[in-house]
Amino acid sequence: MNYREISLKKHGEWKGKIETVCRVPVDNREALSIAYTPGVAEPCMAIHNDKNKSFELTRRWNTVPVITDGTAVLGLGDIGPEAGMPVMEGKCALFKAYGDVDAYPLCIGSKDVEDIIKTIKLLAGSFGGINLEDISAPRCFEIETRLKEELDIPVFHDDQHGTAIVCAAALLNALKLAGKNLTEIKLVVNGAGAAGIAIAKFLLKLGVKNVVMCDLKGIICKGNDWLNPAQKEIAEITNLQRIKGALSDAMQGADAFIGVSGPHCVTKEMVKSMADKAILFTCANPVPEIEPEDAKAAGAFIVGTGSSANPNQINNVLVFPGLFRGALDVRATTVNTEMMIAAAKGIAGCVSDKELSTDYILPYAYDKRAHAAVAKAVSEAAIASGVAKSV
Amino acid sequence: MNYREISLKKHGEWKGKIETVCRVPVDNREALSIAYTPGVAEPCMAIHNDKNKSFELTRRWNTVPVITDGTAVLGLGDIGPEAGMPVMEGKCALFKAYGDVDAYPLCIGSKDVEDIIKTIKLLAGSFGGINLEDISAPRCFEIETRLKEELDIPVFHDDQHGTAIVCAAALLNALKLAGKNLTEIKLVVNGAGAAGIAIAKFLLKLGVKNVVMCDLKGIICKGNDWLNPAQKEIAEITNLQRIKGALSDAMQGADAFIGVSGPHCVTKEMVKSMADKAILFTCANPVPEIEPEDAKAAGAFIVGTGSSANPNQINNVLVFPGLFRGALDVRATTVNTEMMIAAAKGIAGCVSDKELSTDYILPYAYDKRAHAAVAKAVSEAAIASGVAKSV
Repeated sequence: MNYREISLKKHGEWKGKIETVCRVPVDNREALSIAYTPGVAEPCMAIHNDKNKSFELTRRWNTVPVITDGTAVLGLGDIGPEAGMPVMEGKCALFKAYGDVDAYPLCIGSKDVEDIIKTIKLLAGSFGGINLEDISAPRCFEIETRLKEELDIPVFHDDQHGTAIVCAAALLNALKLAGKNLTEIKLVVNGAGAAGIAIAKFLLKLGVKNVVMCDLKGIICKGNDWLNPAQKEIAEITNLQRIKGALSDAMQGADAFIGVSGPHCVTKEMVKSMADKAILFTCANPVPEIEPEDAKAAGAFIVGTGSSANPNQINNVLVFPGLFRGALDVRATTVNTEMMIAAAKGIAGCVSDKELSTDYILPYAYDKRAHAAVAKAVSEAAIASGVAKSV
Repeated sequence: MNYREISLKKHGEWKGKIETVCRVPVDNREALSIAYTPGVAEPCMAIHNDKNKSFELTRRWNTVPVITDGTAVLGLGDIGPEAGMPVMEGKCALFKAYGDVDAYPLCIGSKDVEDIIKTIKLLAGSFGGINLEDISAPRCFEIETRLKEELDIPVFHDDQHGTAIVCAAALLNALKLAGKNLTEIKLVVNGAGAAGIAIAKFLLKLGVKNVVMCDLKGIICKGNDWLNPAQKEIAEITNLQRIKGALSDAMQGADAFIGVSGPHCVTKEMVKSMADKAILFTCANPVPEIEPEDAKAAGAFIVGTGSSANPNQINNVLVFPGLFRGALDVRATTVNTEMMIAAAKGIAGCVSDKELSTDYILPYAYDKRAHAAVAKAVSEAAIASGVAKSV
């Protein structure tokens, strides 16, 4: 059996990857009077008098829903909210295992942007933060932007920023091995959807100057008549030399390629056309942009993929548990760029110079040290940037 | 310290009465590939092809949110969604401890009926059932009715039906001790809000013929010009002799009194005016309609209260964990009258004839046998009434 067959069987046996447990005694009259009526009236009134106390007297401080509308689940596309649930539950399981965050899945049965925003806003008082998941572009941009503006708890669309952060961490370490400087490289990002655009924006913030984005129709260049609003925006700040053409044109002389696109769209010839010590992160799942052995055969220096079957797995599992842990620990009111940069550097820093090799540029997803490092870095950045509330 | 002071202190120490845990291995590469990507794509697609599989491949089958808008929390009134959270968390803790149901609190930041209905409907695909909680009348009637019509999972407003069921269970056993027949008694229900109306309706279904309801303005009688729509409806089927007057008039000759009203509205004189072997369930919290010792001094045969400090605590904790356990076990598509009657009889049946006494008419709230009995009775009734889906 392959992983998918085993997984189906296991999910049928598990009947759920998470569950809720009771943390307090309720097994006698007195215990009930404290955890429930009549005693519970007192913490209720304390919160009624000061809403902030909901972070102290309930589990709100540690609770993050993983919310989807099921429109962009894995590489499976729009499969609907119920069908997205196994992924959401999986994220909740990882939230707990790696970040000690209490997460639960909420699948919204609407694709309407206003419905989704309103539903989340109406429930926000129950949560310490909001993790948006697998919501298709361009709707995900408006949903996240509006929620960040209108809520005072951290809102994080993992498909955008989790991916951007882990790619950045991988790139930092890969460039160290290649002996190249972030500010001097030429980077190609293929796939101008939610993840690709977030990666480009984030790496620009980190200091990369020359980013060229591509999509199915080729290089994204200011003035192209086929760009959607998000692509138009990114066209303003990428490809400053305004080159045109296909992906193969973009890749000539590139130092690094990050693919969040589709299967086998990169050829050996394209890899050969890249600069010396070429870095490729082919994150398309389950089939990468080019098979790692082909990329290596064509001269690639470092290859990372989305799959755990190959070296250098680039997966946002490395990001979200520690990022929310760190944000919740200091009751951050948002997730800002400073916190995301700290997360990227925190992950990269988990691989020591001694350990660093072309087959080991990132800590393993199940490396608890990495999650703890992310949490610490994010907490510190939240404090330093003035968005921490409880310190 | 009293219970409320202890409770505030404990809630500050606990920082949450429930938490989410991970039920599956995720601590190595292979485990991640099964619980998360790439394996998880297979259960996703299985649900995409058949939504029913969400009850088999995820935790949906065992998951029930406790949903409030914070408008009628305990006896505290409209304290807002965040302030309702300690009660909702408490219910979630009890759901788990007594019914092994995975529950989590959702507090909705709107009092608008359509907002609340829509929010719950949009999230329903994540849940096996819906527990509505502490939503004020008359809005709670429309919200529950509409959701029951529009969803195919059990929807249960605990303040109405949980209270009705536990009162019915208590009444069944009290009448057994008094040697009276349900169909022949005169019952007074004081407090014509959500709980009182549900109690009256449910006891009529169970066989009581003569129910007189009262509210602050006195006896509810068909034709009164001050009745709200829910009271108008109940006036059609109660007080068939169309008596008018105050609570004191209603109570003359009554065999049983159920109060879900306010503090100290029943006098010793009223109790003295009742029939022989008078039964009083004074459920107002934290201060009952009459203190138990006063009721007893005035000749009451059996007194029950909402408090755990007195004998015969009448608390819907005895209902909701087992009721949902039973409904979820057979994947009931609703909670119908048959299931509620089965729950009431199941609770009553937990006190044997030998154990039954004027100070012990109900099992204790923390008696696990009682919850198991409710679950079994409810499952069987769901099957017998044709609303069970998975048998």
